[in-house]
Amino acid sequence: MHASRVLRSVAQNAAKAAGSVSATLSRSKPALPTGGYASEAVRPKLFIPGPIEFHPEVLKAMSAGARGHTDPTLIEDFGRCIEMTRDVFISKDAQPFIVSGSGALGWDAVATNLVGHGEKALVVQTGHFSDRFTECFVQYGVDVSVIETPTPGARPSNDAIEKALSDAKKAGNPFKVITVTGVDTSTAVLADLKNICNIVKAVSPDTLVVVDAVCSAAGEELRMDEWGVDFVLTGSQKAFGVPPGLCIMIASQKAMARMPAKEKVRNYFVNLPRWLPIMQAYEARQPSYFATPAVNTVGALRVGLEQMLATPGGMDGYFEAHRRTKAKVHAAVKDMGCELLTQNSDIAANLLTCIKYPKGKGAAQVLPAMKAAGWFLAAGLHPKCKDEYFRVGHMGYSVTQTDLVDKLLVDLKKVIQA
Amino acid sequence: MHASRVLRSVAQNAAKAAGSVSATLSRSKPALPTGGYASEAVRPKLFIPGPIEFHPEVLKAMSAGARGHTDPTLIEDFGRCIEMTRDVFISKDAQPFIVSGSGALGWDAVATNLVGHGEKALVVQTGHFSDRFTECFVQYGVDVSVIETPTPGARPSNDAIEKALSDAKKAGNPFKVITVTGVDTSTAVLADLKNICNIVKAVSPDTLVVVDAVCSAAGEELRMDEWGVDFVLTGSQKAFGVPPGLCIMIASQKAMARMPAKEKVRNYFVNLPRWLPIMQAYEARQPSYFATPAVNTVGALRVGLEQMLATPGGMDGYFEAHRRTKAKVHAAVKDMGCELLTQNSDIAANLLTCIKYPKGKGAAQVLPAMKAAGWFLAAGLHPKCKDEYFRVGHMGYSVTQTDLVDKLLVDLKKVIQA
Repeated sequence: MHASRVLRSVAQNAAKAAGSVSATLSRSKPALPTGGYASEAVRPKLFIPGPIEFHPEVLKAMSAGARGHTDPTLIEDFGRCIEMTRDVFISKDAQPFIVSGSGALGWDAVATNLVGHGEKALVVQTGHFSDRFTECFVQYGVDVSVIETPTPGARPSNDAIEKALSDAKKAGNPFKVITVTGVDTSTAVLADLKNICNIVKAVSPDTLVVVDAVCSAAGEELRMDEWGVDFVLTGSQKAFGVPPGLCIMIASQKAMARMPAKEKVRNYFVNLPRWLPIMQAYEARQPSYFATPAVNTVGALRVGLEQMLATPGGMDGYFEAHRRTKAKVHAAVKDMGCELLTQNSDIAANLLTCIKYPKGKGAAQVLPAMKAAGWFLAAGLHPKCKDEYFRVGHMGYSVTQTDLVDKLLVDLKKVIQA
Repeated sequence: MHASRVLRSVAQNAAKAAGSVSATLSRSKPALPTGGYASEAVRPKLFIPGPIEFHPEVLKAMSAGARGHTDPTLIEDFGRCIEMTRDVFISKDAQPFIVSGSGALGWDAVATNLVGHGEKALVVQTGHFSDRFTECFVQYGVDVSVIETPTPGARPSNDAIEKALSDAKKAGNPFKVITVTGVDTSTAVLADLKNICNIVKAVSPDTLVVVDAVCSAAGEELRMDEWGVDFVLTGSQKAFGVPPGLCIMIASQKAMARMPAKEKVRNYFVNLPRWLPIMQAYEARQPSYFATPAVNTVGALRVGLEQMLATPGGMDGYFEAHRRTKAKVHAAVKDMGCELLTQNSDIAANLLTCIKYPKGKGAAQVLPAMKAAGWFLAAGLHPKCKDEYFRVGHMGYSVTQTDLVDKLLVDLKKVIQA
């Protein structure tokens, strides 16, 4: 039998076997554009909490011709990415790791490289993504405690954090790590990171401070050395301004010293002691190999990092651009008669706003109308109240190099007040 | 102090602290082109065992404008990728998984989803990458046995495989999995996969057949249902013809039925029961989320898969194109007076050739000369003999849609006989 006929019948059988209406539909409908929208003119601009809009030069690097992992230009790109990641987190000697994967891979890295089976972790819960970190710890048999936030959109009390750390320390079994979600993407709560670092220093200095910065890295102020942050994990697709596909991590020398031998880490792919010589080799501009890097995305990361660090005022300038955008967005939200999901403006993120629907409106009224106006926003996410609010991400290229946010706010007011 | 000055001094301190000559050099030298070569004209064509040359339409999809993971066009791309992955491996009902990561992440998936701690795995060793799979099993506490190959470039004996499987079965403790490296990238040995599947069926039918197809998937014949393969793992950057960044896996329904509950898998990020509803949702054209997919690379994968399946004769035509290329390359190797590292042509891969240097020549004579002629080839890799041979990958777009291999062979003959 002819091979293409074999394949066709296999596909048909599979559709039948699954009773899959959609599979059948997808074959009878004209195909949607392949690998993206038919043109930029019809693509809604992306203002979710990441991925975000990308600079054309970043996208150009994504489509660079093939390079191997030992190509000198790739080695240079990778080495610069490592150096610049250190600059982004304002550290003189922390160790970056750039690995192919989603940001969420960083949870596994923490749960298997920084905490042992049965050892203790403390999670500061500010929303759904804190709960996901907890779930990851449980998966790996970590003894996890959670400082809970009763209301979505609030911060837990620093007193409760201090007491938990202090009690464990006094009992002779301090927490190995405390984890803080820099910005919880489900609530837009910005962590009180600097103060939490000070509490840890004061009452449990052996506890490593870990930040899930998937939706905060680069855009929210984070001074790794000065504040005493020990580990940060993030993805490439948020304020770094690069398409998703890279898990970016950085570990303080204190955290590095606490990692077990590579054989004792309970993970192989995200085994940081195994990756360390690879990262050191790239930084020394030498070829090396543990697993094939996402070459094109690494090239794009170099471009994104160079753009970010070229912001007038450097990282402080980049933080400040996001603070200004938050102020603008919050003022517009008030002006259109809406409220924040986040308890108050002071504890809300600079990269993301969670907006409650006004009376009489919901996702069905707001999100399709905004999409029709050319803006892709995100629905609510927190399990307790996901139908009560929507989310607007405002970070990276869109914020620092365009006036797209102003245009978005004009359209949002029209839709909200329609 | 001004922020950009802070950052500069941080970078200088880091370079000093590390005593890093290269870091200093990289700042004083003019920067290399960013994110790729300055132009396609100066980029050597990539003929290593992956990544490979990419079709322009695949690269175009890599640079598509931003899309979120709930964008309908991305859902359609992802759904089609799942359906087409099933077609590529010639199965009617196996379950594909497409996850952000390197192909090597698939080793973790096997070691934590298909084998429990202390349970038994049998590795058929054909080179360095079989040893890496063993290392991953050991990392996760799997009880691993290896059928060794004494000489790099040989296949282990099928009798030894049969005896190991049979002895374990008779002892009442059969192997949970047997792993076969489809093509070992260090030796170009093509696994005797169909016969190994028959041996497993005959003597240890409960053992799952796992193929590390990182350098064989799509280009080397593999009929999942007909042969009885239970799990295949690969990366996007080999014969799939897509930039690296996706770990592509597919599990037979027999393998799916053997997976533990999601809470019992010893991994979080590559926890296949957690990913299953996400893959099912994408195939049903519904939004879903576990971790942000590498959106642009998924779009590119759709393009790559459509091109592959459009080969005249379907997958059989694609396999045959690689068989023809192997015949051509092997004939040319003989003609230029060289020998294969692989024991003989019959057991050598169709996607990759390992060529011994002729007397008086080595890497220093051959690889830079080929690069100067516009071809990026790979050095030897097997620890026992890496200086004795080099490697030429020949798969995907370059082979099926261009005559680049013919041109490469002309230049290689000149360099070898210079």
